Amino acid sequence: MSERIGYLGPPGTFTEEALLSLSIAKSAELFPLGTVFDVIDQVQSGDLDRGMVPIENSIEGSVNVTLDALAFHASRVVIQHEVVRAIRHALLARPDVSLEDIVAVCSHPHATAQCRGFLTSRLPKAEIHAANSTADAAREVAERPEAWAAIGSPLAAELNGLVVLENDIEDRTENVSRFVLLGRAATPVAPSGSDKTSVVCFIEKDRPGSLLAILHEFSDRQINLLKLESRPTKERLGEYCFFIDMEGHAAEPPVSHALASLRTKILEVKVLGSYPRARDA
Amino acid sequence: MSERIGYLGPPGTFTEEALLSLSIAKSAELFPLGTVFDVIDQVQSGDLDRGMVPIENSIEGSVNVTLDALAFHASRVVIQHEVVRAIRHALLARPDVSLEDIVAVCSHPHATAQCRGFLTSRLPKAEIHAANSTADAAREVAERPEAWAAIGSPLAAELNGLVVLENDIEDRTENVSRFVLLGRAATPVAPSGSDKTSVVCFIEKDRPGSLLAILHEFSDRQINLLKLESRPTKERLGEYCFFIDMEGHAAEPPVSHALASLRTKILEVKVLGSYPRARDA
Amino acid sequence: MSERIGYLGPPGTFTEEALLSLSIAKSAELFPLGTVFDVIDQVQSGDLDRGMVPIENSIEGSVNVTLDALAFHASRVVIQHEVVRAIRHALLARPDVSLEDIVAVCSHPHATAQCRGFLTSRLPKAEIHAANSTADAAREVAERPEAWAAIGSPLAAELNGLVVLENDIEDRTENVSRFVLLGRAATPVAPSGSDKTSVVCFIEKDRPGSLLAILHEFSDRQINLLKLESRPTKERLGEYCFFIDMEGHAAEPPVSHALASLRTKILEVKVLGSYPRARDA
Amino acid sequence: MSERIGYLGPPGTFTEEALLSLSIAKSAELFPLGTVFDVIDQVQSGDLDRGMVPIENSIEGSVNVTLDALAFHASRVVIQHEVVRAIRHALLARPDVSLEDIVAVCSHPHATAQCRGFLTSRLPKAEIHAANSTADAAREVAERPEAWAAIGSPLAAELNGLVVLENDIEDRTENVSRFVLLGRAATPVAPSGSDKTSVVCFIEKDRPGSLLAILHEFSDRQINLLKLESRPTKERLGEYCFFIDMEGHAAEPPVSHALASLRTKILEVKVLGSYPRARDA
Repeated sequence: MSERIGYLGPPGTFTEEALLSLSIAKSAELFPLGTVFDVIDQVQSGDLDRGMVPIENSIEGSVNVTLDALAFHASRVVIQHEVVRAIRHALLARPDVSLEDIVAVCSHPHATAQCRGFLTSRLPKAEIHAANSTADAAREVAERPEAWAAIGSPLAAELNGLVVLENDIEDRTENVSRFVLLGRAATPVAPSGSDKTSVVCFIEKDRPGSLLAILHEFSDRQINLLKLESRPTKERLGEYCFFIDMEGHAAEPPVSHALASLRTKILEVKVLGSYPRARDA
Repeated sequence: MSERIGYLGPPGTFTEEALLSLSIAKSAELFPLGTVFDVIDQVQSGDLDRGMVPIENSIEGSVNVTLDALAFHASRVVIQHEVVRAIRHALLARPDVSLEDIVAVCSHPHATAQCRGFLTSRLPKAEIHAANSTADAAREVAERPEAWAAIGSPLAAELNGLVVLENDIEDRTENVSRFVLLGRAATPVAPSGSDKTSVVCFIEKDRPGSLLAILHEFSDRQINLLKLESRPTKERLGEYCFFIDMEGHAAEPPVSHALASLRTKILEVKVLGSYPRARDA
Repeated sequence: MSERIGYLGPPGTFTEEALLSLSIAKSAELFPLGTVFDVIDQVQSGDLDRGMVPIENSIEGSVNVTLDALAFHASRVVIQHEVVRAIRHALLARPDVSLEDIVAVCSHPHATAQCRGFLTSRLPKAEIHAANSTADAAREVAERPEAWAAIGSPLAAELNGLVVLENDIEDRTENVSRFVLLGRAATPVAPSGSDKTSVVCFIEKDRPGSLLAILHEFSDRQINLLKLESRPTKERLGEYCFFIDMEGHAAEPPVSHALASLRTKILEVKVLGSYPRARDA
Repeated sequence: MSERIGYLGPPGTFTEEALLSLSIAKSAELFPLGTVFDVIDQVQSGDLDRGMVPIENSIEGSVNVTLDALAFHASRVVIQHEVVRAIRHALLARPDVSLEDIVAVCSHPHATAQCRGFLTSRLPKAEIHAANSTADAAREVAERPEAWAAIGSPLAAELNGLVVLENDIEDRTENVSRFVLLGRAATPVAPSGSDKTSVVCFIEKDRPGSLLAILHEFSDRQINLLKLESRPTKERLGEYCFFIDMEGHAAEPPVSHALASLRTKILEVKVLGSYPRARDA
């Protein structure tokens, strides 16, 4: 029986593209879901075997909803894999529409923001409309009678009967996104020799030295940190938890030692997973 | 001649509400602008005297576009003031529409996300549409013939001829936002006795100990940090700058000492401003 | 059968005075020994039940020979108790000798150094002779026909038939010494509620951050350090081990956590003992 | 006119040997002085141009009296040079005395302690007498009619008409001492490209994090520490100042930056000098 893998949909998102880059996706049944929460819930409940969600974008920063879901909501899922992909935006339209005809451009506000330079110079008069995702934008453009264009992926064009009018219209070429494949916590990934561990550290209120205390566990053991991000704990402005990615696997020293010691210092350490480090991450 | 103050518009945003809470706004001419970048640009160029922008939300985290604009774009502006406001979402509709009639709800995706509970239980069948801001949503709802509702502020209702169908529809009551008033760097704010300083620290590539080095300057001088946030520097996934808010004023020790020493340790320290600390921040 | 307790002799040393201040000494058999090594050896071998040695002097610093013996030589002994005593030097002579007669002063070089002011002003013409201990000096003065004086304790005067010509002749009044009572490692001391733990940390060569790594374990857990001293490891100039005294007991958190974590960071942690903290230490 | 250089005498000490290894000593007038304080005083007053004193021994640790004199007493002198020498002890006697005849051995207690193995196995019956220095011991042995031996340097033998009965009688071969040449503060030493800086850091009472604060200034700037030693400040047991040797010159970054910042963090930083680093230090 083939695996069941969910992803943040609708079909045509960059998340689907990232999932399709994995060999595991070839023989699996894929399910687009409406929110990151839905993906996590269905992996936790066992309805899905795994799920793919976006976690970081080099321009927009972390995907807050994914971080929050992993920190505050997820309890029986772990990160098993990461995929890093260059994000290229394309201008998509119906086959009968050319660039000069376009009166409006529709996309997720982030995508629109990333293409501001192109829009200002080439489509200065087009109205800007918001959509809930780039894939939704493509669908809306396909359905409308007017000469609208969408900003999205070539996959989204294909899925909605659109064509690519212009490739790589983003302002910066260094737009990279990171996606993670989630599985059930009962099936952690064994050390591969080049791994990465993601954790969330929760600290008590009014403990100003806590971040230093956390960092010492890693710096003192020469554990290389790959990412550090503070997030409000959603209870009061100014209180934080810390998302940390580090080199190494949680089942092996020195990471295992660092985490054991950290647990005696702070409120809680939640290991989101240890998994092979993507080459380009 | 009255002062000219810009803000992130359109009229009816929470940013306008925050600006109106300041006595300085009473006698000033106010200008709604389309983007945070526009506000900063016009303060820098001298077209505006000051400008108000959102910088942090207790649920959604930092407003990335503001942080990035201050870090990478702004050069002759400083934060002069902060305003902290509880964010209350209301459901807005035309006066002739009642809750039962509503077929669609339109708002900025963040606002929609913050009211998921209300929407699921009270308007389970309504379609969800995206808008570029809560104020835009209110305008669109006012113009449409269908029975749509917007999620936004009472101010947005008033400005667009709508009425409030339901107040405080957000899932969490602890939804607080922070806004900052920007002015020209030539007019910094003198120490008030209870101040806050915001800085951005840029570090060189491949210097894993840099964050510790930064934190030591503050911890060793018993300077209380109020916020720490890492952000990608937009050049490559995994490289960061750090936004730090601390107690104290940059013109007085120990903060002045810490910043002077920090400048000899890392690539660049950009002081975004020292300003009176809001009581509820 | 009464306990057998050794101490750094000969009779009349400040170490004997410190030992006599303990109630345990009342019913014990006391044995003066020639060196700190001898005391430790005989406790280790079981010839003695316990042993008293000097470990620190507020003016002269640590007693190196005791630190080295504990760090590099002792293996089955622990510190069970500490005694802190004000050190008062007296000028001792035979009963028939008065201050004006004295032609030479004899003592351990440290004692002589601590009374430089007195010797310069009151006995400017006296020759200074070295002895291996203040007690040895008293014995030598008692045996010599010439009008010599010794610097030492009233107890040393009593034991050698001398009298005190002048009390408290030291330059500084704040001359305090610390002594420790050693017992076998099989009989550690249970937590008393106000304890102190002494450890030696050995670090690998060429690990410049090791001291910081050590200190972090304590600072991050708010463990108060009472003393820190580096000592060469006797192998090459410039390599060190660290003697650390801290508040708390090694059998209880947070000290137990700190030591467990430290063992995963550095070469070796040797616990010299946990024992009740002296009131005046 | 030739330079006047003092040293810790009497003639025949290892300090004189170290001084004679410097080319500067060839054309200078050399003055043996009784104490380290005398050497420092006469350099300060201008009676001497420079002075040589011992500062560290790989087995015995730091020379406390030198550290204290530099920390608490010296004010217008700086370290200009360091000399590192292997310390070899020899057994010295009158030419008519052979090993079998010896009834007593005389030396500074440290030297005697360093030759304990030789004395136990080869001269088990000899009495041990204390002297104020190895050079004093040689003089006393030369003057006595009995068959005494001294432990000291070949130079001391030569100066006192003794002969070397046995070379290299110390227990450990790795016995290395460090000596420093002091000059007036008005004549600091320019950077040589491979320098070392010695400082003393004084901290306020009850500031447990001060040592960490000090170390951060160096670790955060990748300044390599060569030595760290805490010493009581002679006021109360348990209060310390820190002697630190580091790579680099106080007139150049990063050391200049570290010291400037340190001055804003702690009570006082006293620079003892920047000087060329000895090859074998």
